[in-house]
Amino acid sequence: MAATIALSRRGRPASAPNPTVGCILVKDGRVVARGWTQAGGRPHAEAVALAAAGEAARGATAYVSLEPCAHTSTRGPACSDSLIAAGVARVVIAAQDPDPRTDGVGIARLREAGVEVLFHVMPAEARAAMAPWWTRQTLGRPFVTLKLATSLDGCIAMADGSSRWITGDRARAHGHLERAMHQAILVGRGTFEADAPKLDVRLPGLKERSPQKLMLTRRAAPDGWTAVASPEAIGGVDSLLVEGGAGAASAVLAADRVDRLLLYRAPILIGRGKAALDDIGLANLADAHGRWRLADSRMLGSDRLDVYERAREG
Amino acid sequence: MAATIALSRRGRPASAPNPTVGCILVKDGRVVARGWTQAGGRPHAEAVALAAAGEAARGATAYVSLEPCAHTSTRGPACSDSLIAAGVARVVIAAQDPDPRTDGVGIARLREAGVEVLFHVMPAEARAAMAPWWTRQTLGRPFVTLKLATSLDGCIAMADGSSRWITGDRARAHGHLERAMHQAILVGRGTFEADAPKLDVRLPGLKERSPQKLMLTRRAAPDGWTAVASPEAIGGVDSLLVEGGAGAASAVLAADRVDRLLLYRAPILIGRGKAALDDIGLANLADAHGRWRLADSRMLGSDRLDVYERAREG
Repeated sequence: MAATIALSRRGRPASAPNPTVGCILVKDGRVVARGWTQAGGRPHAEAVALAAAGEAARGATAYVSLEPCAHTSTRGPACSDSLIAAGVARVVIAAQDPDPRTDGVGIARLREAGVEVLFHVMPAEARAAMAPWWTRQTLGRPFVTLKLATSLDGCIAMADGSSRWITGDRARAHGHLERAMHQAILVGRGTFEADAPKLDVRLPGLKERSPQKLMLTRRAAPDGWTAVASPEAIGGVDSLLVEGGAGAASAVLAADRVDRLLLYRAPILIGRGKAALDDIGLANLADAHGRWRLADSRMLGSDRLDVYERAREG
Repeated sequence: MAATIALSRRGRPASAPNPTVGCILVKDGRVVARGWTQAGGRPHAEAVALAAAGEAARGATAYVSLEPCAHTSTRGPACSDSLIAAGVARVVIAAQDPDPRTDGVGIARLREAGVEVLFHVMPAEARAAMAPWWTRQTLGRPFVTLKLATSLDGCIAMADGSSRWITGDRARAHGHLERAMHQAILVGRGTFEADAPKLDVRLPGLKERSPQKLMLTRRAAPDGWTAVASPEAIGGVDSLLVEGGAGAASAVLAADRVDRLLLYRAPILIGRGKAALDDIGLANLADAHGRWRLADSRMLGSDRLDVYERAREG
């Protein structure tokens, strides 16, 4: 299942608005086919794997990171039906589908057709792999990542606004990769006007992955940008990367909309510079604790990346 | 030699104004005695080890982290003479003594007496262990550690000044241990007036290790404190821990007097709070790079401690 979940991540973020799912077909102890959700959400992972397996699917075990869908669409048949038709003997499922059209229905249909079903196998890991879709599905809002690139003393720029560069090449390349993994990015108008950031993905082979560009502003947005009046008003995407500046970052934090923090920190001191954040509505210090859990920490050249995830549902 | 250097650290900071040195006597492959510089700087490490070894020192090899002294004092004989008198056959030395009264003289005297001498064995490690004394000896100023305890966004307090607590128990206990390892601590007047910090060592068994208390102020200091007008005016100690606030921290950074950064970082966000630093005299971003090298990084509960050392002499 761990391999299936790892495979599912390949669909990010192109599978939106569908979840990114992985499927591995195993027969007689050998992998006979693999699939993950394709760009635009179709074909589904199961359809890709079944097509690749052909007759070899008969009698196989299918490992899937999400319950196979039970609803037919103009874009394709229901995967639970396809698995039955292909003669799959056993389906192992990580997470049950929270979509009411499938939620438990896919499992029931498989069982009725005589397919052996195991489910709830590594569900937390599967949900983490499809966190953007899961968040939108269950909370009705995008999964939000806030990126901050600071000095050791927490500045995102010098007092005169200069910020090129605080972090090094490797940290900035990692930032571009994160950008490619998101459907939309958000900046404040001030950051746009000061830096006129292109915010495209400047990595070989990933240029077509440049996300939709949103600007937090009450006025009209410039060409190529979409204006959003508040963090709560952001819809239509599963995943959002907040790129700055302090105003936009503070607005999403104050709205309690941040699920993940990407903190790139360079080994420099700036002193009297621009702070990473403005008012985030914190009333007292005790309230600040218990909100963030360290999920990953690594060196990128001489910079450190710390990834924090929210420690509670919201 | 690594064991000798580790042993030498036991003398910190009590050995001041003398360097903290370690000495291990080995004979026939067995350790026959060990010693390190005692409180106040005497007896020296060699004297302690020789006294413990007695007749067993004859024919032994002495491992010492610093060249044995060549100058007699009212407080004791020269260690090079003592090693010769005890019949030590071989002396292995990490670092040569920069004190002009000994610098090379100790080695020469040992050799003239027929003692085999090896030196320059792990000198960098030995110098690091005695960094406070070495810094004062070679640069004429104390070795300065700057401690900052911040939120992820680099704040040392909320906007109203409240800072209890940002970091957790384990990080604060580590801070007390660091305090016990320094001869003096420095705060700004503002920090004193806002927090009236006691700045003593609140760890069992280490209360008598509370350092001398210095205040950065142009006025008179309160009872129990010594006023210093500028970072450059601080003398008479080998090691200084700068405890805050932003004014004192920025003053020592602007004076380019900081050798080591202790960054305790709690997994919280504060937003519009008190910044860790004020103006440190940085003219442009490029000048900020290349100054600090990560020396240690560890978790203390849910807080992270990063230790940076200056990357260049100054």
